[in-house]
Amino acid sequence: MIVRKLPEIRKSDRNVVSKGWESARLLLKDDGMGFSFHVTTLYAGAEIEMHYTNHLEAVLVLKGTGTIEDLGTGKVHRLAPGVMYALNAHDHHIVRPKTDIVTACVFNPPVTGREVHDENGAYPAAADMAPREAALSP
Amino acid sequence: MIVRKLPEIRKSDRNVVSKGWESARLLLKDDGMGFSFHVTTLYAGAEIEMHYTNHLEAVLVLKGTGTIEDLGTGKVHRLAPGVMYALNAHDHHIVRPKTDIVTACVFNPPVTGREVHDENGAYPAAADMAPREAALSP
Repeated sequence: MIVRKLPEIRKSDRNVVSKGWESARLLLKDDGMGFSFHVTTLYAGAEIEMHYTNHLEAVLVLKGTGTIEDLGTGKVHRLAPGVMYALNAHDHHIVRPKTDIVTACVFNPPVTGREVHDENGAYPAAADMAPREAALSP
Repeated sequence: MIVRKLPEIRKSDRNVVSKGWESARLLLKDDGMGFSFHVTTLYAGAEIEMHYTNHLEAVLVLKGTGTIEDLGTGKVHRLAPGVMYALNAHDHHIVRPKTDIVTACVFNPPVTGREVHDENGAYPAAADMAPREAALSP
């Protein structure tokens, strides 16, 4: 059994801070769960475009409000606590937090954590990210 | 992109109520994400023994306090918001909520949802559950 505490993860190298967001990785690939599990905060006023071509991701909003735009359909969904979105079709999307938004995120396959050390996209997983996100994933 | 709202899930047949807990299944096997994603509430005062022999599960506490006892080691961990536990070794365990505990849970492989319709263990997934939980999983 693995037991971890969010405040400790946030102070460790499992907490990744990037442009418009930060993410505390509770579980990574090496934990052997078959998925990774993150608590990610999206900052108020940011406009975060993402396109995970090799990952599926589910996001549950815990706090805060904003919108998500599905760039494939043009549809905009309101984000608020209790709203879950799942990128089941590698959906290209933009999140626009009105306030800071705190989320619980699941990635399949799991994020390795190494992505955070190379913002130039040198790791294979970098191909998963939209150019502006380089090798980082929330 | 799948978008679902917790209040609506809680009013649907994706919300399962059992002895000591209830669970809103935001994502199930049929959603094709490779994991299932639940918001599960464990009731204050319950003593919930679980043993998923065929699943891995991660649980993030969102609200409430209590304890989890690892029956393999005898170790007791305090549960509070921000604590995550992962059953990476099919750990046999007991959760004892002091208050109602609300959690975000991830199962790999995903729960099908059919488990909830057969408390006698007739579905193959029933083998995953401890006898007292029959064919139900939080």
